[in-house]
Amino acid sequence: MTADTPNEQARTRIRAAYDPELLRRAGHHLVEQLSDHMAGKQSGAGPVLPWSEPPALVREAAEVRDHFLPPDADRAMLAERFGELVRIMLDRGLNLHHPRYIGHQVPASVPVAGLFDALGSVTNQVMAIYDMGPWATAAEWAMVERLGEQIGWRVGEFSGLVTHGGSLANFTALLTARNVALQDCWERGVASSAVQPVMLVQSDAHYCVSRSAGMMGLGTSQVIRIGLDARRRMDPNRLDEALTAQRAANRPIVAVVACACATPIGAYDPLDEIAEICHRHEVWLHVDAAHGGCACLSPRYRHLLSGLERADSLIWDAHKMLFVPALCALVLYRDRSHLFQTFHQDAPYLFDPSAPGLAEYDSGLRTVECTKRAAAFGLWGVWSMFGPQLFADMVDVTFDMGRILYEKLQAAADFQPLHEPQCNIVVFRHLPPSMAHAGPEQLGRFQLELRRRVIESGDFYIVSTNLDGIGALRVTIINPLTTPDDLDQLLDTLREHGKKLVINTI
Amino acid sequence: MTADTPNEQARTRIRAAYDPELLRRAGHHLVEQLSDHMAGKQSGAGPVLPWSEPPALVREAAEVRDHFLPPDADRAMLAERFGELVRIMLDRGLNLHHPRYIGHQVPASVPVAGLFDALGSVTNQVMAIYDMGPWATAAEWAMVERLGEQIGWRVGEFSGLVTHGGSLANFTALLTARNVALQDCWERGVASSAVQPVMLVQSDAHYCVSRSAGMMGLGTSQVIRIGLDARRRMDPNRLDEALTAQRAANRPIVAVVACACATPIGAYDPLDEIAEICHRHEVWLHVDAAHGGCACLSPRYRHLLSGLERADSLIWDAHKMLFVPALCALVLYRDRSHLFQTFHQDAPYLFDPSAPGLAEYDSGLRTVECTKRAAAFGLWGVWSMFGPQLFADMVDVTFDMGRILYEKLQAAADFQPLHEPQCNIVVFRHLPPSMAHAGPEQLGRFQLELRRRVIESGDFYIVSTNLDGIGALRVTIINPLTTPDDLDQLLDTLREHGKKLVINTI
Repeated sequence: MTADTPNEQARTRIRAAYDPELLRRAGHHLVEQLSDHMAGKQSGAGPVLPWSEPPALVREAAEVRDHFLPPDADRAMLAERFGELVRIMLDRGLNLHHPRYIGHQVPASVPVAGLFDALGSVTNQVMAIYDMGPWATAAEWAMVERLGEQIGWRVGEFSGLVTHGGSLANFTALLTARNVALQDCWERGVASSAVQPVMLVQSDAHYCVSRSAGMMGLGTSQVIRIGLDARRRMDPNRLDEALTAQRAANRPIVAVVACACATPIGAYDPLDEIAEICHRHEVWLHVDAAHGGCACLSPRYRHLLSGLERADSLIWDAHKMLFVPALCALVLYRDRSHLFQTFHQDAPYLFDPSAPGLAEYDSGLRTVECTKRAAAFGLWGVWSMFGPQLFADMVDVTFDMGRILYEKLQAAADFQPLHEPQCNIVVFRHLPPSMAHAGPEQLGRFQLELRRRVIESGDFYIVSTNLDGIGALRVTIINPLTTPDDLDQLLDTLREHGKKLVINTI
Repeated sequence: MTADTPNEQARTRIRAAYDPELLRRAGHHLVEQLSDHMAGKQSGAGPVLPWSEPPALVREAAEVRDHFLPPDADRAMLAERFGELVRIMLDRGLNLHHPRYIGHQVPASVPVAGLFDALGSVTNQVMAIYDMGPWATAAEWAMVERLGEQIGWRVGEFSGLVTHGGSLANFTALLTARNVALQDCWERGVASSAVQPVMLVQSDAHYCVSRSAGMMGLGTSQVIRIGLDARRRMDPNRLDEALTAQRAANRPIVAVVACACATPIGAYDPLDEIAEICHRHEVWLHVDAAHGGCACLSPRYRHLLSGLERADSLIWDAHKMLFVPALCALVLYRDRSHLFQTFHQDAPYLFDPSAPGLAEYDSGLRTVECTKRAAAFGLWGVWSMFGPQLFADMVDVTFDMGRILYEKLQAAADFQPLHEPQCNIVVFRHLPPSMAHAGPEQLGRFQLELRRRVIESGDFYIVSTNLDGIGALRVTIINPLTTPDDLDQLLDTLREHGKKLVINTI
């Protein structure tokens, strides 16, 4: 160390924090705790959710935060403190690997996927500019190319990127559509259109689609909702009529947004027909395949996506049904010429004029994020270990479980499935004898209350929703370790909590 | 397993992938490899960047991807394959922990921070709705509260959130400002304003600010750039004049955007004066403190942020100068009543009507992300181990190093610092004797070429930039393990590569 080094004490403390031997010791601690935790949860030990009221938990997190060690703590003390913190965190999180976690569209992820992410986190691999994250870039490209091929496209003709979540992915794709439809709006603003532009959207589309219209300055009232058929799929005839009406009114059309599948009951829109209509009206077709894009990895289920290859843009969340940890959402464009239109860059050599050929590899030109974590490491790693068969297996098993649950609900006199599932999302109601004379509103409230009791008990983690304004229970079998036995238990658990709820209500 | 289990073979393969003992074995492998790698890189072994041309690297990532194991591979084979993949990834990434990485504003992160992230990744802890990630929510709140206090605010009066990166953070805050300034634009669109609204922005602000105007439908041409003083800080007088002119023209003003500090040379705007002017004109003041917010953790440097506490909104990237892995960006609002205005939700009970009091804890109501990873685990974990002293140390040491580099550059006849640094960002040019008669453009090209040669050699990782249109070299000392000796070596390395470059050019 030279004489002009400032803050020698500060440097000593920093070296203690960066100590590779602390990393080694803490890391081995973590692996032991995580593996034990994983084994326990997979075998169904303990509650799915250890429920606490949020203000109490925030207070606890603040108290722990303030019990840091003194600045001269040695390696052993630091490693011990690390172990304590890991214990606190594991004991208070939601246990997605518990077979009775069948809740939101967030999976019990393949455990080793998280280790590939960890490599990225500890070494802080990022993207934005190619040379900041060469391997992060390469791994992302390899997966974008592979999944695009799975849709039916040819490498070199399409383009894609990974971003932080489905909402951001939908926003990114729709922003591209907006800039293509309204040529000067990037510079001049949406106000430059003489007539207000519209977006035509599946009525059950995720809230982020309408939110995107609010965010990008179109206004949520310019979102036209297209009606559904009896199975809650977009009705192609109604889409055709709406497009004809909008064209007649001369209103610019930013995009048609279809779903594969939609959130509420997992309904897959008829993409072939929709694509044909969009082609005829010359409008951009965007497909939200965040959840359902996975079907193209399963020979048994890929028919659900027939027509997806005709979309102009689509999104696909690997952190849903490709079972990697959040967040890893893909945006794919059928035509790679749209590569730089999201942010309207005419000059793809923007980032480094001394190496213009590299611009396509600079993710920051194409994603909302500038610095972006190596979000595709988990996906690339799992694929490189197990190949496509594992992904097909996970789709098949969980989609099949949707059907099995449906059949169990049909067979039970006190349960009512509200649709025939196309995938692993199932919406239903519990109808105990005590509810026989309840009106629809009371029946809906009962489902919501029941759900809250069940999750707070820790017995199961499920979700509630509203279908046509009436509360219902909703399950996504997104833990491939969940068995038919668990589903039998679900029905019994709901009956049990339902009884107590009725007694208390009376 | 009951008789109605489908796909028994698929389930067997899935169980192999989810095997907790595979997690254990792979995890211990990873920890050994990571710790050895970390020790090597910290000691300066090997290149900073192992340079490869991007197409070749993408091809390699695709080849590795396709060499997955057969579906009946056992635990030992899987663990071995995992180790191979880790080796491939570590050998091809940028080594931010190498003391000669002094590049973009992405840090050599505290190694154990990545382990806290890993816990989140392996167990897939997320947010969106409180009960999906109780501890993820609690840890985030604890850090938002603590850092808000550090700015000078009182818990309970302000609000904040964590999002995926500074660009998304700036966009989120400016969207809130837009919705406050243009009351009906969420529903009716930006086109509903009779006069086009504007945004007044520090001329050196990050590209994402102008991009935000394009994204949210204002149009990039509605961004008014406010001129700088001699030290590249926003000139308060010019801001005052511009605001007066816009008010006179009756144009709605979305926000004033100041920087603490700005990207090019790390200049801190005079926030006290700017806040006073914004207050007088009644406009929203947003401060991009992505990089420089850290100064409020250092008693020696916090004077740079005087006035920050008067901002209406600000962003602060923990994945920059709080030295945690990407991405963990905070958005903070001085007045918590703006909590739900980003997406214009009048109904904060939107997510679960059976528990309206929980809405504030449902992050999805306030962030662009719906599902969001537990992005604050690293920050909460490091703070809970080391406390605020470590953060102050890292700010002091790296900011001091900026000054040390400046002095070395001043003392060297063949280097020219282009500013007196306020933090750890230093911009300069190399002026070898051979360049004595070069014009400004040639001199600029020389810097860019020199930078490319240096990073491709692996000797150092530094950045280039343009200052007033002329190329320059740029360094951010964002690895707290970098020493003054390394900076001496930087000058020598630049001289060496500069000589070769001149010979080749002639």
